[in-house]
Amino acid sequence: MSNHGQQSVPTVSDVPVGINATGTRSESDSMGSIEVPADRYWGAQTQRSLLHFSIGDDRMPKAVYHAYGHVKKAAAIVNGDAGRLETWRRDLIVSVTDDVIDGRLDEHFPLFVWQTGSGTQSNMNVNEVISNRCIQLTGGELGSKTPIHPNDHVNMGQSSNDTFPTAMHIATVAVITDRLLPAANSLLRTLQEKAHAWRGVIKIGRTHLEDAVPLTVGQEWSGYAAQLHQALDRVDAGVRGLYPLAIGGTAVGTGLNAPDGFGTDVAAQIAAQTGRPYMSADNKFAALGGLDAMVAASAALRSLAVVLMKIANDIRWSASGPRAGLGELILPANEPGSSIMPGKVNPTQCEATVMVCIQVIAHDTAVAFAGTQGNFELNAMRPIIIDNVLHSATILGDMCAKFTEYCVSGIELNRDTIAGYVDRSLMLVTALSPVIGYEKAAAIAHRALADDSTLRDAALATGFVDGDDFDRVVDPAKMIGIDNSDRS
Amino acid sequence: MSNHGQQSVPTVSDVPVGINATGTRSESDSMGSIEVPADRYWGAQTQRSLLHFSIGDDRMPKAVYHAYGHVKKAAAIVNGDAGRLETWRRDLIVSVTDDVIDGRLDEHFPLFVWQTGSGTQSNMNVNEVISNRCIQLTGGELGSKTPIHPNDHVNMGQSSNDTFPTAMHIATVAVITDRLLPAANSLLRTLQEKAHAWRGVIKIGRTHLEDAVPLTVGQEWSGYAAQLHQALDRVDAGVRGLYPLAIGGTAVGTGLNAPDGFGTDVAAQIAAQTGRPYMSADNKFAALGGLDAMVAASAALRSLAVVLMKIANDIRWSASGPRAGLGELILPANEPGSSIMPGKVNPTQCEATVMVCIQVIAHDTAVAFAGTQGNFELNAMRPIIIDNVLHSATILGDMCAKFTEYCVSGIELNRDTIAGYVDRSLMLVTALSPVIGYEKAAAIAHRALADDSTLRDAALATGFVDGDDFDRVVDPAKMIGIDNSDRS
Amino acid sequence: MSNHGQQSVPTVSDVPVGINATGTRSESDSMGSIEVPADRYWGAQTQRSLLHFSIGDDRMPKAVYHAYGHVKKAAAIVNGDAGRLETWRRDLIVSVTDDVIDGRLDEHFPLFVWQTGSGTQSNMNVNEVISNRCIQLTGGELGSKTPIHPNDHVNMGQSSNDTFPTAMHIATVAVITDRLLPAANSLLRTLQEKAHAWRGVIKIGRTHLEDAVPLTVGQEWSGYAAQLHQALDRVDAGVRGLYPLAIGGTAVGTGLNAPDGFGTDVAAQIAAQTGRPYMSADNKFAALGGLDAMVAASAALRSLAVVLMKIANDIRWSASGPRAGLGELILPANEPGSSIMPGKVNPTQCEATVMVCIQVIAHDTAVAFAGTQGNFELNAMRPIIIDNVLHSATILGDMCAKFTEYCVSGIELNRDTIAGYVDRSLMLVTALSPVIGYEKAAAIAHRALADDSTLRDAALATGFVDGDDFDRVVDPAKMIGIDNSDRS
Amino acid sequence: MSNHGQQSVPTVSDVPVGINATGTRSESDSMGSIEVPADRYWGAQTQRSLLHFSIGDDRMPKAVYHAYGHVKKAAAIVNGDAGRLETWRRDLIVSVTDDVIDGRLDEHFPLFVWQTGSGTQSNMNVNEVISNRCIQLTGGELGSKTPIHPNDHVNMGQSSNDTFPTAMHIATVAVITDRLLPAANSLLRTLQEKAHAWRGVIKIGRTHLEDAVPLTVGQEWSGYAAQLHQALDRVDAGVRGLYPLAIGGTAVGTGLNAPDGFGTDVAAQIAAQTGRPYMSADNKFAALGGLDAMVAASAALRSLAVVLMKIANDIRWSASGPRAGLGELILPANEPGSSIMPGKVNPTQCEATVMVCIQVIAHDTAVAFAGTQGNFELNAMRPIIIDNVLHSATILGDMCAKFTEYCVSGIELNRDTIAGYVDRSLMLVTALSPVIGYEKAAAIAHRALADDSTLRDAALATGFVDGDDFDRVVDPAKMIGIDNSDRS
Repeated sequence: MSNHGQQSVPTVSDVPVGINATGTRSESDSMGSIEVPADRYWGAQTQRSLLHFSIGDDRMPKAVYHAYGHVKKAAAIVNGDAGRLETWRRDLIVSVTDDVIDGRLDEHFPLFVWQTGSGTQSNMNVNEVISNRCIQLTGGELGSKTPIHPNDHVNMGQSSNDTFPTAMHIATVAVITDRLLPAANSLLRTLQEKAHAWRGVIKIGRTHLEDAVPLTVGQEWSGYAAQLHQALDRVDAGVRGLYPLAIGGTAVGTGLNAPDGFGTDVAAQIAAQTGRPYMSADNKFAALGGLDAMVAASAALRSLAVVLMKIANDIRWSASGPRAGLGELILPANEPGSSIMPGKVNPTQCEATVMVCIQVIAHDTAVAFAGTQGNFELNAMRPIIIDNVLHSATILGDMCAKFTEYCVSGIELNRDTIAGYVDRSLMLVTALSPVIGYEKAAAIAHRALADDSTLRDAALATGFVDGDDFDRVVDPAKMIGIDNSDRS
Repeated sequence: MSNHGQQSVPTVSDVPVGINATGTRSESDSMGSIEVPADRYWGAQTQRSLLHFSIGDDRMPKAVYHAYGHVKKAAAIVNGDAGRLETWRRDLIVSVTDDVIDGRLDEHFPLFVWQTGSGTQSNMNVNEVISNRCIQLTGGELGSKTPIHPNDHVNMGQSSNDTFPTAMHIATVAVITDRLLPAANSLLRTLQEKAHAWRGVIKIGRTHLEDAVPLTVGQEWSGYAAQLHQALDRVDAGVRGLYPLAIGGTAVGTGLNAPDGFGTDVAAQIAAQTGRPYMSADNKFAALGGLDAMVAASAALRSLAVVLMKIANDIRWSASGPRAGLGELILPANEPGSSIMPGKVNPTQCEATVMVCIQVIAHDTAVAFAGTQGNFELNAMRPIIIDNVLHSATILGDMCAKFTEYCVSGIELNRDTIAGYVDRSLMLVTALSPVIGYEKAAAIAHRALADDSTLRDAALATGFVDGDDFDRVVDPAKMIGIDNSDRS
Repeated sequence: MSNHGQQSVPTVSDVPVGINATGTRSESDSMGSIEVPADRYWGAQTQRSLLHFSIGDDRMPKAVYHAYGHVKKAAAIVNGDAGRLETWRRDLIVSVTDDVIDGRLDEHFPLFVWQTGSGTQSNMNVNEVISNRCIQLTGGELGSKTPIHPNDHVNMGQSSNDTFPTAMHIATVAVITDRLLPAANSLLRTLQEKAHAWRGVIKIGRTHLEDAVPLTVGQEWSGYAAQLHQALDRVDAGVRGLYPLAIGGTAVGTGLNAPDGFGTDVAAQIAAQTGRPYMSADNKFAALGGLDAMVAASAALRSLAVVLMKIANDIRWSASGPRAGLGELILPANEPGSSIMPGKVNPTQCEATVMVCIQVIAHDTAVAFAGTQGNFELNAMRPIIIDNVLHSATILGDMCAKFTEYCVSGIELNRDTIAGYVDRSLMLVTALSPVIGYEKAAAIAHRALADDSTLRDAALATGFVDGDDFDRVVDPAKMIGIDNSDRS
Repeated sequence: MSNHGQQSVPTVSDVPVGINATGTRSESDSMGSIEVPADRYWGAQTQRSLLHFSIGDDRMPKAVYHAYGHVKKAAAIVNGDAGRLETWRRDLIVSVTDDVIDGRLDEHFPLFVWQTGSGTQSNMNVNEVISNRCIQLTGGELGSKTPIHPNDHVNMGQSSNDTFPTAMHIATVAVITDRLLPAANSLLRTLQEKAHAWRGVIKIGRTHLEDAVPLTVGQEWSGYAAQLHQALDRVDAGVRGLYPLAIGGTAVGTGLNAPDGFGTDVAAQIAAQTGRPYMSADNKFAALGGLDAMVAASAALRSLAVVLMKIANDIRWSASGPRAGLGELILPANEPGSSIMPGKVNPTQCEATVMVCIQVIAHDTAVAFAGTQGNFELNAMRPIIIDNVLHSATILGDMCAKFTEYCVSGIELNRDTIAGYVDRSLMLVTALSPVIGYEKAAAIAHRALADDSTLRDAALATGFVDGDDFDRVVDPAKMIGIDNSDRS
């Protein structure tokens, strides 16, 4: 127990969140006093950051603060249970951290993304807000740091250097797991349903954008589903990489000022709070000096973007037309497509998806670049990394939801068009190749194209095959390897 | 003059901006009716977009709408002056566009970045808001499209396909010129002032992070200033590339439904409104199918980021310490640096600058990628491009302002440290090279390092040079090519 | 004149390039002796670099050495003319540099890209080769550094720090100007010819991949040509940015060990040798500490890649089919397209172009990243930057040549297909919009799509327009703004 | 068994690899005849590709062909064992594929990277070379395609569309496993050894480049080792993702012209040949339409680059000096560092490492971009992807080897400098924070800095702590959490 901050146990009252005051009040830190808005819980360091870093309108994502609530709660519990923090202090801090976790103090976390590279200012924002909210609850004087001091109590056993990456991991897991994955899995199921529904619809395949041999629409869409499934496996792996936490490393990884086992205990407590298998990272020097698990999580999100972009592009091209395009798919018409061309309907969900994917890929380059720029005991590029990763997860998730609801689930087939392409295709000749050899088959295809004739007519004209053999061999249904009974 | 929408001239009243209503009202478009918030001017297409594209919290930047105000104003004036739009309609639209330009209708432009790739929904948002505000001013029924129709009047002679890239150019020029360049030029002047102030302070140069031959601090900083100056020249060139406008191309570049000369006239009108030399683009097919000037503007912003990052890194490394770093510069101490290490002061402005630069570089990759993804008569990646470019310009500008005010302008030299490095340096031996040859000079340097001796002692010990010659030749002030009278 | 290396004028004999020896000989530098291949001119420092940096198979591009030949030649001339270098030494070095420039010594420049970040090892490679070749020509002993010393004579007044970026600029200008631009301009002319030839062929426009209003094929291709033309203007600007040279800055920008005016004189001499307007850079600290003109040149190459990728994509999509694609263009069939599908022809030149463009865009990210990583008086990322930029220029240039010769110049139109799309299009309804209003026009388009009818039939069925008016207004030729006499 | 190509079993003679001929011979494909060099095994399609795609000097990596040798061998064995290919044909093909695998036919694979996006031309190159080599061995006529036909026999049951991605996976696994991982693991061991050797050397930590609390050099290096170890785990995961193979999908994923189970059998055979657990991919449409496992492998290589760059930067900064830098590490002096500054030694291995890492990160952006650009049944960006991934793996591997051998393993500590920093540091005050509170501790640090005094003097001057307590608490060894017995 520290020899400072001793005092009698205060009474905790049930004051609702919020400060009923106007104007400013004075707050102080080691650099002196500064005026802060009287209706805000934050203190001097937050205010200084607001002053020095009002750059654009990019705010540190709220998910970081919610995650920080878990960190501060867990630290208070561990410190309290070990007797380093009085029980009443522990309980008081814990009650306030629940408000942080649930977003009820969001408006008291105003800081910008572009701030100190360690995230210290956001950590201090959290410390200050919890301190002042605790002070309010105990009837103390805001800014007095008594009875709950932002550093000595809320930050006890911690440093920004270990808590900020800890909060980064927790926030990223939360946004991916709670916002992205449900939406992406819904898209996956929808793709799988379409693949099943269209398992018997034969279409012409396309490679190099050129007509190729047939497959079913269901097979094609099973490919989309498989690509997405594999991408989500990669996202899962990315999430798993985030479970080891930096907590316990404090300032440079040695754990200075944190008791033995602190990181392990806090990680276990966070795991209990969140229901997720967090643990203390094996090597704290790596956890502070690098942000490698974040870089890997970003790469996993990119995997998803790469796949989604391919799917969205395929869908919009397949739906192109209605009369001068491929016209195989019919997309839901959600809105008028043109301010000048009446009646135009465009694949806008696909376009938005493509743009979101490009943004995610670009964010990932920011993350990797920033990931390289650590020096010695700290990678001081944390804010840019967490902002880009959370933004990627968020827009990917929301986009998956919209894309599913307003595009994919409503897609229908233009079966006549699809069948027409199969009937006219020349690449069915491929089935003849094992029978008459590649070169004769090629000659038939070239002849049909030159004569603008059907493949059958061209084949018979060459004399390489007779009608019966042609009809037996060149059967699209046989060529796709599915049972004819599946054909619809 | 069109044969529709004829009516008597309505009275225009002086209703303040805003709709005093609650609940919803019905608006319609070619797809039917939809409820919109009763206190908002927007119509059916905006509402549909809000429904279908609420993805993350990325909103189309307000600067795009302010720019769109210029486009709609100019189009109304040109259409009115040519008699295609009645004078009262022209004047009514013009009065409302002034509110758009000045931001008084900002809250009526709620759309997300992730929407149709052409920006049509934002164009229709503008058309609808202007229409309904005009209707309100003439005492009509909101949503009636009478007497000002969003398509037939506000969008007259235009398409999203030509107006959106036009607005992109105008918005980008505005943000770069009005927000970025003043701040960047202020940084430039501050660097130049420092270079001048420190023109006589000799320091040791560093190449490969290793001690090299001396230069003055002023020379070093003149390099920063020159790099920044050249980068700003590139930004200027990027801005100039944005003056040609797509307006007049309408849907696919042919100018369908726009009268001859419309693009030229509107561009001239926009030039008059903004005081900037906009003109009609030579080839409208290129202006719609590509967004190349935007890609180039983004590259110009990247030029600036590349330079700023180098400068910020140099400054933070030069200020590293205070006792275990290079310690040549003393940065302003704006805030406590650590939640655990008392008294720590960190180069936070430099770190924020580095992160902003990385973000800008990453945004630029999004822009280039999106720039490649046009198809046929349209690049449908406009929203991502404008959002990334404007964000880059904004955070670069604000960062330059903060970096100048809270870091660069307050930097001071640690002259003792700087002088000490010069005194101890071995690379002054380079001055001997033309006299005794490279190899003997190298031998002296190696000896001094091995013996941990001064360069002079090592030189004399080799016998390659005597004391007088050494003192005459190895004179840091002579080595830097400045007059000794400048030395401070 | 230096007080070392004095000797009588040697006789220069006419020995052909090459060393008739086997095994190794000993060479030395300030670190001692090392064996080098006896049939190579290089010396100890080159050999050390070969030993320490054999990484992959990426060799410093030969264009760098050819450029370095110009630098060494110009320096020798300037030093000679000023009397710092004896006339015979000057002439001897000059004669050897001509071999360097013309590539006759290429096999003596074996170093890898991945080496010292300053390029010092390649500079020393040049110095050593010139030295030993001069020694050979004067009958001296290879490795003796007499009568021409690699540092004292060949490198006189220079540092790697100023000569390497000088050579980078010269090499980049050469490759862009001599290899890229001729090919790109040939592509431009071909696009312009096609645009002219097809100026009267009406086709349906496509926006969002969806049918839009018509334009001519010539108009579409004029857009390609205009985009390319503008990109080449950006490349020109990038080249102009490379004319200021770092030469004269020597080690850290101060010009230590170079006489006054040396940079200016050498730059003028290089200009005379190359016929290009090189000049001495205004600020040498910027020229050594940054590589900003290279970053900008890379961005200019990226501009070209962005445009080429759009064109190549348009072409391959327009040629997709032959029976299940858009089928408007017929590409030359250069090779069989498939190992399994007989008769398949693919848009392989387009695919290669797209890949080259992606590679160039990726290289550009390497260049920008490396451009940020300078420290103090040196950006030590030079080899990666020059390698990526030269590679980009080379593959862009060669690709333009192949794409022109084997694809674009041989493209033909499938006029029946093109006309068919126009006939069936619904978006011609846009021409009715100014006459009957946007909403009625939209209703006609929706009806035609729903009924699978022609636009004319649907229009008449609505009663919004009669047949005569329809035929008068809905005239594709009128809609594209060209004279009907141009129509083919 | 096919009904073509029947013939009596030819005699196979023991002709060494190579064709003793000059000039050209005629080869043909479905497009006609073409002359090829008489001393090369390749046929018409290879020759056409050489003609049409000589772009830069980027050749398809030889590792792709060695991998293709495995594919062709396995296919021949499976086809032979199933009776589809005569035993003598099987054995003949197998014997030649062994030459392909072992590189003895490398000079017969000349194609460029920039070719058809499917890799068909490289597949046909392999087919043609194996065919002609078999013909040679059986005394046939080169180019006759008899008795071994490139398509009908060598390509039996295969398409480029499934074999090329199969070869990509095999080649990537080979280069990563055989070239990269051994070198990277050697670096890892060296880092671990250094971490162990220096486990007791206390140094000052640095965060934000600023002095922080102490740790041991061993702890710092254990962080490097841990980061590298985790990165290698990610590379392992990337490799595992490559084991599922596309083989069996043939042209579009349906397996047309391949018998049931072909993919499974060939994958099993490849596994047997290589000793690696290859298997048939679950969904062939995904395996042909996407290249997601390659994108993920590239991201894994990037993980390694991100970590290596951090380590290399730390090392070069720690070694900066010798007299005006941090000077904690002493790097091996491998070569003279400057052409103008005698005696200069630079961290060239670190610089090369940083450049390689940037290159790998940039390559990864090419791979991700290309990964998005698939259409329908094929991603036609295969050559750029395989080239970038293999190049990344190669230069990373070689760089790890050189960095280990010529830099890391020879690094020594400058113990006096390291100890001096610890003695002078102010951040040791952090240890007082739990005792006297954060604010008083901060006051002590500020005082010491302002007075240029030691921390102890400043602490005692404030009266916040007495000398005994100071000495007991402010003990660097205690602060780092290691036993004093470890201290060296």
